[in-house]
Amino acid sequence: MKSFITYPINSDFSIHNIPFGVAVFNKEYIACCTRIGDMVIDLATLYDYGFFDEIEGLNENVFEAYTLNEFIELGKPVTTAVRLKIQELLDEHSSLAEDEKTIQECFYNVDQVKMMMPVHIPNYTDFYSSIEHATNVGKMFRDPANALLPNWRHLPVGYHGRASSIVISGTAIHRPNGQMKPADQPKPIFGATKQLDFELEMAFIINKNTEMGESISTADAEDAIFGMVLFNDWSARDIQSWEYVPLGPFLGKNFGSSVSPWVVTLEALEPFRTATPVQEPEVLDYLKFTGDKNFDINLEVYLQPENGAENLICKSNFKLMYWNMAQQLAHHTINGCNIEVGDMYASGTISGEEPGSFGSMLELTWRGEKPLQLNNGEERKFIQDHDTVIMRGYAEKGDIRIGFGEVSGTIIPSK
Amino acid sequence: MKSFITYPINSDFSIHNIPFGVAVFNKEYIACCTRIGDMVIDLATLYDYGFFDEIEGLNENVFEAYTLNEFIELGKPVTTAVRLKIQELLDEHSSLAEDEKTIQECFYNVDQVKMMMPVHIPNYTDFYSSIEHATNVGKMFRDPANALLPNWRHLPVGYHGRASSIVISGTAIHRPNGQMKPADQPKPIFGATKQLDFELEMAFIINKNTEMGESISTADAEDAIFGMVLFNDWSARDIQSWEYVPLGPFLGKNFGSSVSPWVVTLEALEPFRTATPVQEPEVLDYLKFTGDKNFDINLEVYLQPENGAENLICKSNFKLMYWNMAQQLAHHTINGCNIEVGDMYASGTISGEEPGSFGSMLELTWRGEKPLQLNNGEERKFIQDHDTVIMRGYAEKGDIRIGFGEVSGTIIPSK
Repeated sequence: MKSFITYPINSDFSIHNIPFGVAVFNKEYIACCTRIGDMVIDLATLYDYGFFDEIEGLNENVFEAYTLNEFIELGKPVTTAVRLKIQELLDEHSSLAEDEKTIQECFYNVDQVKMMMPVHIPNYTDFYSSIEHATNVGKMFRDPANALLPNWRHLPVGYHGRASSIVISGTAIHRPNGQMKPADQPKPIFGATKQLDFELEMAFIINKNTEMGESISTADAEDAIFGMVLFNDWSARDIQSWEYVPLGPFLGKNFGSSVSPWVVTLEALEPFRTATPVQEPEVLDYLKFTGDKNFDINLEVYLQPENGAENLICKSNFKLMYWNMAQQLAHHTINGCNIEVGDMYASGTISGEEPGSFGSMLELTWRGEKPLQLNNGEERKFIQDHDTVIMRGYAEKGDIRIGFGEVSGTIIPSK
Repeated sequence: MKSFITYPINSDFSIHNIPFGVAVFNKEYIACCTRIGDMVIDLATLYDYGFFDEIEGLNENVFEAYTLNEFIELGKPVTTAVRLKIQELLDEHSSLAEDEKTIQECFYNVDQVKMMMPVHIPNYTDFYSSIEHATNVGKMFRDPANALLPNWRHLPVGYHGRASSIVISGTAIHRPNGQMKPADQPKPIFGATKQLDFELEMAFIINKNTEMGESISTADAEDAIFGMVLFNDWSARDIQSWEYVPLGPFLGKNFGSSVSPWVVTLEALEPFRTATPVQEPEVLDYLKFTGDKNFDINLEVYLQPENGAENLICKSNFKLMYWNMAQQLAHHTINGCNIEVGDMYASGTISGEEPGSFGSMLELTWRGEKPLQLNNGEERKFIQDHDTVIMRGYAEKGDIRIGFGEVSGTIIPSK
């Protein structure tokens, strides 16, 4: 498949992708959009021009909106048909290629748009589903010989996070103030965190509302997942370690999380399915599943100091997740907890086995014991003011490549 | 102060109260409302009739809405003026007393309306601010000699909860299924919780949006609080105890929480201010405060078995809270976490020192060791199917009484 829009062979936004987002066009007009190569396409105007007329169930211009929620809520039959229609319109043999008026009205270079949060997020949950990450944290903070807690292999551990402070890539994040308890001091102190960290995560987005009391099986779970984004779960380790026992992370996390602007659909990710790692001991029935439920997505983290170049500091892969998304959603709803359109469920830090694949500064520097050497001669134990953290993700197979673009965030001094 | 509407001397909804809620009137029409005695008053129609014309800043009919959020967002200058205006309209000397048309159009007996969720809740946080409750839980599950964890007296411990499953009083709650790990079994099992519990809490509701990076001081905190409701934080103890280490409560809580329909304003609660218990050791500067920041609100919990009478099983008081609401909000935002209109912040279980004042079955029966005797001859360790739990709250001083009505919920079998 080829498009009449040309793009480099390593573009994240090939014709195989067709992700969805929300953009401000020319600083004045907001609409849902898709992207191919470096072109961002205004779907609301495309709708007005009648290009989606034949799609059943798409009865109003849901693209004329500040979020994707209305579109997503139409469910897979509609969203999949829209994606395929866009792919067809962008094909090299499409009559759209000759339709200069539509191209002029609906196609914008990526430099002319500003991306916004793709969805309104009613609820946000963060899982803890990488066995390598959980093991690393357990070794550092608990017992190296029994790093995994007893429940870890039996259920996808998760907790509720803060939805209000999830922001779009490019938003600056203030270094948080808070209470910390240095080991060598008798009492807690107040100040800006000294251990600001990122967490390399991905998150999935829900396309339906359920009633309280309803559960979603692992077999049905993927039908309820519209797509995925990259997710940086910024963390203040010193604030977190003082506050988190017994009720979990709170101010160490809720000062901000960053997401990438383009929601890549599960349909686009189909070619990249792969097996979930063997789960031992066997899981309870409601967590059993069939088929390939992991996805082979290459992940990278770059640290860019102020006025410096990017440093690749982590290479990991989403396929390493011990618990897959279907299991996470089945677990989340097994007690009847209702879900809502736009809900975001993050994976937890995605670490591999090798030190270079660890998805946080905490693990990469082993609590600061082994600082990272940057290419400008500086070193880092944690993230400094004016540092930028960039996460990128892409999947490749044969000549098909699709990607997530990036989620980027710069830390600015505390207020 | 006296109203032309008569009500019993022990009514929660005296002319001193003037709470706000949202009702379905005659099964067809939804609007924001207030209540006096047994009369529910449609504020949207009252607005259309011009009764609020003189209130500055109230430029559209925000009462014509499915939630109080728009009204609340106008802030204290407007919401306080509206409350005082309603009080004046209901006064015995008001001309409204003779205005039969308005009374017929706007006043409904409480039996003719169905109350709905008063606000849309963008974010929900649950604190853990009763020292007696935290001590009881610490004694039972951790070390009786060191029941309070090291951080407890230094910060108001809290965690993010699930907003989607907060429901209005009267909504039936399904007994949740889930994973539990009985002490005498080698592996976790799956089933309906055997340790279903309530938690007696109160919650406050936010009236403003802040930007990320902004903090709210203890001095400014109460300006950002519109009012309060009763809150039942239903809990499944066996699910919770297996899942909660290390990231906190999740499926043991998120299957449902119940709130009372009437939001009582902080202004109505003014006469009931009282001192916060002495905090020792001294707190960090950002948690210091001046003035009386606790509120003397009597709380009661009743357990009603199917076809049985109510049993009073707990008498507690909101004034016992170790951490006050101003401190909770100052702490929550000290790291720059932004807040949103409609956010709900619950207190945590409100227990007193005496066994009869414990705010959960867990504490009342001391983990089931001392079952409660009901007046129908049955006993309870935890909540059974078809049991109803009712919480009531009221404040009294001289001849002023204002109350919250009740939050009630019945447990039905798991799906």
